[in-house]
Amino acid sequence: MLALLDGTLADPDAPLVRVDDLGLLRGDGVFETILVVDGKPRELDPHLDRLARSAAMMDLPEPDRAAFERAVSLVLDNWTGGREVALKLVFTRGVEGGDGTPTGFALGMDIPAKVIGQRADGLAAVTLDRGIEPGLAERAPWLLLGAKSLSYAVNMAALREAERRGASEVVFTTSSGSVLEGPTSTLIMVRGRTLTTPPSTLGILPGTTQAALFRAATREGWAVRVEPIAVDDLYEADGVFLVSSVRKITRVHTLDGKSLPDSTELHEELVDLYESEY
Amino acid sequence: MLALLDGTLADPDAPLVRVDDLGLLRGDGVFETILVVDGKPRELDPHLDRLARSAAMMDLPEPDRAAFERAVSLVLDNWTGGREVALKLVFTRGVEGGDGTPTGFALGMDIPAKVIGQRADGLAAVTLDRGIEPGLAERAPWLLLGAKSLSYAVNMAALREAERRGASEVVFTTSSGSVLEGPTSTLIMVRGRTLTTPPSTLGILPGTTQAALFRAATREGWAVRVEPIAVDDLYEADGVFLVSSVRKITRVHTLDGKSLPDSTELHEELVDLYESEY
Repeated sequence: MLALLDGTLADPDAPLVRVDDLGLLRGDGVFETILVVDGKPRELDPHLDRLARSAAMMDLPEPDRAAFERAVSLVLDNWTGGREVALKLVFTRGVEGGDGTPTGFALGMDIPAKVIGQRADGLAAVTLDRGIEPGLAERAPWLLLGAKSLSYAVNMAALREAERRGASEVVFTTSSGSVLEGPTSTLIMVRGRTLTTPPSTLGILPGTTQAALFRAATREGWAVRVEPIAVDDLYEADGVFLVSSVRKITRVHTLDGKSLPDSTELHEELVDLYESEY
Repeated sequence: MLALLDGTLADPDAPLVRVDDLGLLRGDGVFETILVVDGKPRELDPHLDRLARSAAMMDLPEPDRAAFERAVSLVLDNWTGGREVALKLVFTRGVEGGDGTPTGFALGMDIPAKVIGQRADGLAAVTLDRGIEPGLAERAPWLLLGAKSLSYAVNMAALREAERRGASEVVFTTSSGSVLEGPTSTLIMVRGRTLTTPPSTLGILPGTTQAALFRAATREGWAVRVEPIAVDDLYEADGVFLVSSVRKITRVHTLDGKSLPDSTELHEELVDLYESEY
């Protein structure tokens, strides 16, 4: 199901985008992926806030929030698939040499079966060097570190490298071994009753699902920390999780081929916390 | 003018690409831009070689060379614009969750007036940190350094940063001040009768125009070197040039606000060398 910013529905299987759209030719645009459950989008406002933030980082026009909200409603009102929807919002710089009118749409898709399986079973991840160091994001904003741009080829290449290594996910690290994020997820480490995630100032995306979980956890008396995590810390943690809108809270049971402590029960607790927000 | 890999022409102003094409959603594809003069594409084979190399770096299927050659001919046979064409070849991973059929096309466009002006007048450039160090490209191939992918948002952001600084182009550098490349060009430094360009092992694109110029220069008795260049070296050179298919050989007259030695005559010599190849 596909809706455009002008308030119309379109056929997702029909061509919609021109070949000279800069979103295609240059990966020059931004996106968000929102989880919808039983017709209700989760964290819609934080997602729209982040879309606007990414757009600002890339000197794009400000996305028309009301038009995106209308497109979201249109997709959901006409959705005929399963209980859950992965709802993608896309906003590009428009066609090359055009009048600057951005291209934008909301696209509803089914949740991939693989992701559903990983929510229940957890997954194996590998660490991969992202080639960035602390300080770079602030020093060199043109590197767009922490912007959710359409230029995700590296994120996809990292996932293929994980598969070559017999895993299905990636934990990006700095060259000096500090934990960053997954290619499409945020990392959360748990020790006792403390949740920790790395700071977005390292050049990573501020997570909407991580924020929702931290909100719920704080309310229930857990401690939450946003601070650097060394890769070695992950092996001694009570649990390591990759979280995102579509994957929710997914357990990492194996890292770089080594089993992590069993976090099955902890996972259930975190899922309950997260679901209590909705 | 637009031609598809199935050997048909299409309307470039009409939608052609689905919203769930991974080239759009993930910048997950590769491209080349070829200069065509008087109906003849320049360096077509090196461009097709590099398209295949970029595709291999991204685990894409091998582009169908004959189909791309046919699309190139179709565009040029039907071109009704100026003497020169910027001919873009695009090859993406196809639609998300599809059968793996890539999307591919050849798109002919006019050369931007700005580029034509810069060929004659030269340009001002600024150095910007690309945030990579020597060795990273080989150590972390998933970072796709040196692949000509559709994920060019950073390259475009760097050009906007240059404009904010009153310049129109960028010389990317490592954090330690070694010269890399432009966002869409190769850097060549000239001292006496020696042309120097940085090695692609630094994680930069091997240049087709640079290779053509080096070929011609070697034939005419110039020395050519592929070796690291320190930013400071650029100020003492006889000439600094950004070269690419569409811009040909373009003189950098100002770097980070400082005037470089006048290289007008040297520029003419290099242009003659380059044009002697065709």
